Amino acid sequence: MEEKINRLKAILAEISDLNHATALLAWDMQTYMPPGGAEGCGNQLALLERLAHERVTSPEMGILLDELKPYAATLEPDSDESRLVKVTGRNYDKALRIPARHIEESARLTARAEQAWMEARQKSDFSIFQPYLERTVALRQEYASFFPGFDHPYDALLDDFEPGMKTADVKAIFEGLLPKQVELIKAITAKPQVEDAFLHQPFDVNRQWGFGEQVISKFGFDWKRGRQDKSAHPFTVEIGLNDVRITTRVDANFLNSMLFGTMHECGHAFYILGLAPELDHTNLQGSASLALDESQSRLWENLVGRSRPFWKHFYARMQETFPQISTVPLEKFYKGINKVTPSFIRVEADEATYNLHIMLRLEIEIAMLEGKVDVKDLPALWNAKMQETLGITPPNDAQGVLQDIHWSQGSIGYFATYALGNLISVQLWEKINQDIPDLEGQIEAGKFGALLSWLREKIHRHGAKFEPQELVQRVTGSRIDPGAYVRYLTKKFGEIYNL
Amino acid sequence: MEEKINRLKAILAEISDLNHATALLAWDMQTYMPPGGAEGCGNQLALLERLAHERVTSPEMGILLDELKPYAATLEPDSDESRLVKVTGRNYDKALRIPARHIEESARLTARAEQAWMEARQKSDFSIFQPYLERTVALRQEYASFFPGFDHPYDALLDDFEPGMKTADVKAIFEGLLPKQVELIKAITAKPQVEDAFLHQPFDVNRQWGFGEQVISKFGFDWKRGRQDKSAHPFTVEIGLNDVRITTRVDANFLNSMLFGTMHECGHAFYILGLAPELDHTNLQGSASLALDESQSRLWENLVGRSRPFWKHFYARMQETFPQISTVPLEKFYKGINKVTPSFIRVEADEATYNLHIMLRLEIEIAMLEGKVDVKDLPALWNAKMQETLGITPPNDAQGVLQDIHWSQGSIGYFATYALGNLISVQLWEKINQDIPDLEGQIEAGKFGALLSWLREKIHRHGAKFEPQELVQRVTGSRIDPGAYVRYLTKKFGEIYNL
Repeated sequence: MEEKINRLKAILAEISDLNHATALLAWDMQTYMPPGGAEGCGNQLALLERLAHERVTSPEMGILLDELKPYAATLEPDSDESRLVKVTGRNYDKALRIPARHIEESARLTARAEQAWMEARQKSDFSIFQPYLERTVALRQEYASFFPGFDHPYDALLDDFEPGMKTADVKAIFEGLLPKQVELIKAITAKPQVEDAFLHQPFDVNRQWGFGEQVISKFGFDWKRGRQDKSAHPFTVEIGLNDVRITTRVDANFLNSMLFGTMHECGHAFYILGLAPELDHTNLQGSASLALDESQSRLWENLVGRSRPFWKHFYARMQETFPQISTVPLEKFYKGINKVTPSFIRVEADEATYNLHIMLRLEIEIAMLEGKVDVKDLPALWNAKMQETLGITPPNDAQGVLQDIHWSQGSIGYFATYALGNLISVQLWEKINQDIPDLEGQIEAGKFGALLSWLREKIHRHGAKFEPQELVQRVTGSRIDPGAYVRYLTKKFGEIYNL
Repeated sequence: MEEKINRLKAILAEISDLNHATALLAWDMQTYMPPGGAEGCGNQLALLERLAHERVTSPEMGILLDELKPYAATLEPDSDESRLVKVTGRNYDKALRIPARHIEESARLTARAEQAWMEARQKSDFSIFQPYLERTVALRQEYASFFPGFDHPYDALLDDFEPGMKTADVKAIFEGLLPKQVELIKAITAKPQVEDAFLHQPFDVNRQWGFGEQVISKFGFDWKRGRQDKSAHPFTVEIGLNDVRITTRVDANFLNSMLFGTMHECGHAFYILGLAPELDHTNLQGSASLALDESQSRLWENLVGRSRPFWKHFYARMQETFPQISTVPLEKFYKGINKVTPSFIRVEADEATYNLHIMLRLEIEIAMLEGKVDVKDLPALWNAKMQETLGITPPNDAQGVLQDIHWSQGSIGYFATYALGNLISVQLWEKINQDIPDLEGQIEAGKFGALLSWLREKIHRHGAKFEPQELVQRVTGSRIDPGAYVRYLTKKFGEIYNL
């Protein structure tokens, strides 16, 4: 049986190498590729993805799995090999159910839909994008139909991003969260607003860049195992266990983009870099789910980077770097970067309003998939929901239903992971503070070693070995739950806004 | 038969995509990859190279070629399809003769030999490298033995870089060249030396970079289809027909590295960028040979970039960029960048001495391959030959036999291409000056359009369609010949040194 496990690992290593080469191409496309390279890069990506897919679904893989599954059942269920066979089997079963025709049509549609979305957003004209979104919804409905075993069609979509998680679970979590966040925001907006004008002024981009590098160096980012570049949309990419790259964007007139973007992506990078080496080069490399992934980025961005102890350590250096804020007291700066204000654009939303943007999208996605809402009615529905939850109505569709690229890429089913990531980050944070009672003091002293070690030990090293609910349960003792997040928001913003 | 040609093209397109993805990985390794990425990148490169090799030598390829060869014989011999089948057949026949064991051992040896060479050069101790070079020579002898049809074992090696070219041809060319170059250098060294101290002083690296960009932009480098980055060793890489990247290095205290390096690599890039689109995505993409490739880089570096008309156009701008040379007259600058002086290091050699470095290596390579010289005797042989041709003896082996990386990479057989490239560049130059009588005037006016168009039309668009001798014959009316180069050196340096 060892021979078969080794053969499985050899195939998985090949798939891993193909995926990492693909990742480099994708990274290059967003960072350094000259415009002329787009078509060639597209061809190369398509080929490498096909070669990986062929290996995931090969007849040899099917035979190997048939032979290995009974053997894996005899192993300790949490052992690496048992999980390896389980995850490989799951991926194989899923991949086999999706006809090549569906994959091809989705790819073709996506290429055109993204163009249409860009034009629609630019002109703020939903009708340009509508037919593409209608077809996208139909394809996602068809996709769900390939997996008839689920309770709800949305489950099939969600499962690709949050293995084992059900739509009903997410709904229950969000139902517990929504009223409390709406209530909190109402209370905040009734209070005098904090000032943040000092964040919106010219900041030298090279100094910004240097400051971001200093921060994540202190966090423990290992420049021998990664790098940071500029891109229009920040992202993190795994080229390999020892080559994880992040990107960020720098706004010459607003500090937050670079600052929190860099910390956010660094959090993603830590997850990949913290993998147990024995899981490298297998399909257990990666994260348990997108929500777990997001929990790591949000933890560094918000729970560390938007905290008072963090700025107690870094603020003097920041004022040195940017003399234009030398007269802004620490407390004023802290409140400014934590300003809560209902806004139209999700990616710019603060901690208190962010999840509301997500819940709105989830509700709409589920309704589209169930066929309970017509795509043509989305703009009106979107605006009504914005008014209902955030108390504001977008002035146009570009700032409303057309703001996110995701649907144009066929990604219906993963918005929830952003909000779940926020919830998990605070659940972990409560546990970390129990395990490291002096955490605040350490952060204030610019020491992040114990925090990073904890995350590596509890989360990162496991890669994709556990399902998200399972991992959260193992680490915190409970499943994903909004309680901690509500406690966190209430305490933090209660204090900032004197609620 | 059309179906079979299309199937062949589909396979060649896949190989091309794999090679281009490989090229991106190699580019990344030399430019942006963090050190930790080396091992993963090595795995990915090995996999992609294996996948390409499998396609080049697949049974399907063999069957297709058997069917297509008789058909290709009925086509016009210079047609794209005829050449496509011919070149594919040549590559297939070659690849099939080389046992996988040989490829693997060569790869393993290279990885260790390069390390050993680096250490040997650092310590200037040939004995560290000697056993690796002995094994390399043995492997290259074995490689030659896979191709028993050649007149000389070195032919088999040379043929990989200069298809169709024979060792006897190269020897005959070099025998006509060597005495004339030696004689010229003797005449030059008897004359008073020109001054070039002004080239060796601090030059702001960003300004250097900007100046290089200006020059190649004027040449016609299309930044939408390429880019330039920094690397320890300058190179040009084809990621695709519309994505060709060059790199250069900048020396803060010497102008020439950036200046002539940038023009050199730009010349290579033009070759790739000038391909006829109908040859894209096939194995006719690329160059006719390494010598032809080098003829293009040398043409822009030397015949354009080290010429008086070029500097008549650019020198005012250069003096503006670098006020530290504002008192150096144009004529003095021109002579300075063309200073001839026998030196130890090939890559720093001037136009008049460069080929002598190559001829020395060729003689040694052939003798090694014939078994007429023991590897252990190389340092002494090297030094004796240096004294004989250049009149100087290296003070140590680091500046002698250990200076070049090539042998450590298993590359025995292609040094000649550098010198052949020089010869071809001037053969082309004579022809270009006939076809564009006003060429000097155009260069002086900063106009390079007609020159680039000529090169595209005569050389670039054909890619790898013709063999090198065939292409030179087609374009210049004669085969590769040292006459033009000798005329050029004699005239140029006769004038600079008042011979």
